[in-house]
Amino acid sequence: MATHQTPTRGYSATKDQLQTRLRRIEGQVRGIERMVEEDRYCIDVLTQISAIQAALDKVALGLLDGHVRHCVAEGAQEGKGDEMSTELMAAVGRLMRRG
Amino acid sequence: MATHQTPTRGYSATKDQLQTRLRRIEGQVRGIERMVEEDRYCIDVLTQISAIQAALDKVALGLLDGHVRHCVAEGAQEGKGDEMSTELMAAVGRLMRRG
Amino acid sequence: MATHQTPTRGYSATKDQLQTRLRRIEGQVRGIERMVEEDRYCIDVLTQISAIQAALDKVALGLLDGHVRHCVAEGAQEGKGDEMSTELMAAVGRLMRRG
Amino acid sequence: MATHQTPTRGYSATKDQLQTRLRRIEGQVRGIERMVEEDRYCIDVLTQISAIQAALDKVALGLLDGHVRHCVAEGAQEGKGDEMSTELMAAVGRLMRRG
Repeated sequence: MATHQTPTRGYSATKDQLQTRLRRIEGQVRGIERMVEEDRYCIDVLTQISAIQAALDKVALGLLDGHVRHCVAEGAQEGKGDEMSTELMAAVGRLMRRG
Repeated sequence: MATHQTPTRGYSATKDQLQTRLRRIEGQVRGIERMVEEDRYCIDVLTQISAIQAALDKVALGLLDGHVRHCVAEGAQEGKGDEMSTELMAAVGRLMRRG
Repeated sequence: MATHQTPTRGYSATKDQLQTRLRRIEGQVRGIERMVEEDRYCIDVLTQISAIQAALDKVALGLLDGHVRHCVAEGAQEGKGDEMSTELMAAVGRLMRRG
Repeated sequence: MATHQTPTRGYSATKDQLQTRLRRIEGQVRGIERMVEEDRYCIDVLTQISAIQAALDKVALGLLDGHVRHCVAEGAQEGKGDEMSTELMAAVGRLMRRG
């Protein structure tokens, strides 16, 4: 049945690697919670936040890359190139300004 | 004994709020893991990443704020103003360039 | 002669608007030079720098948009989709981390 | 007369270096205008924009540094520490989110 079909995404080929990265980021956030629990120095907590931001940027760039290579490329062949470019640029704008 | 005393940090007065925010961010990261597990659309995953980055920026600004108001202010009175300004600027630089 | 032909770029259709924006940004930078010359308050200078960064982000997003819609779309038809995606992602990465 | 006195700013000691950097950035913006005039490749224009943003970030960090070391330090001694911390954090927030 079509409803049970797994849709192919830009990240389908690298899904395992993506999941691993996200679990690591989840662990980094929990690490910060522990640092705060233990009253660690503010600057050390901030350094960890920067590390998480860098890791999230890397995940985001990987997702964008897969999206451009697969979804946008396919969309263009189906005449949805313009619509998908608009959507892509909105996502890039959010990433550049962070939210 | 002094060694068991809890150090006062820039975030000590708002530690509960900070912990709540961090747990919410941890939940958001898990939410993204679920989205990837369910093969959700790349752009929707990216939107969630931007939301987490905005939330982390907010946490970082709160930590910086407390650090400047408490730690840097105190440090200045103890003659450590220069050293702490250098450290603060390095942290701001990492946040601006993300890691 | 082919060598004198103007190449079509992603921004060709909006070149005038782009030039106007860049001249305005040039004027904003000169405005900051004047502020510094007149020993204006640090925070006011910083506010102007943020305004220029936002204006540059807007120009960059416009350029990316035109590039994806025209150059990458055309490149894909000529079998250069992969190469151009790699190049595009490197540019987005530089914009996200600013240099 | 007090009205003709030059106010001391966080950047007063490094004003010449700051002016030099700003003039260089102004030149970089004019360089981009020329690139667009000559219909240069979108990605090359974007690379230059990233370079300007990195240069502006550097100027901003220098201004913040001087502001914290001089103005905020002095303000704290005059009982304006809280007010100036609020102002500083707003500036950092604008720089992190770019405008």
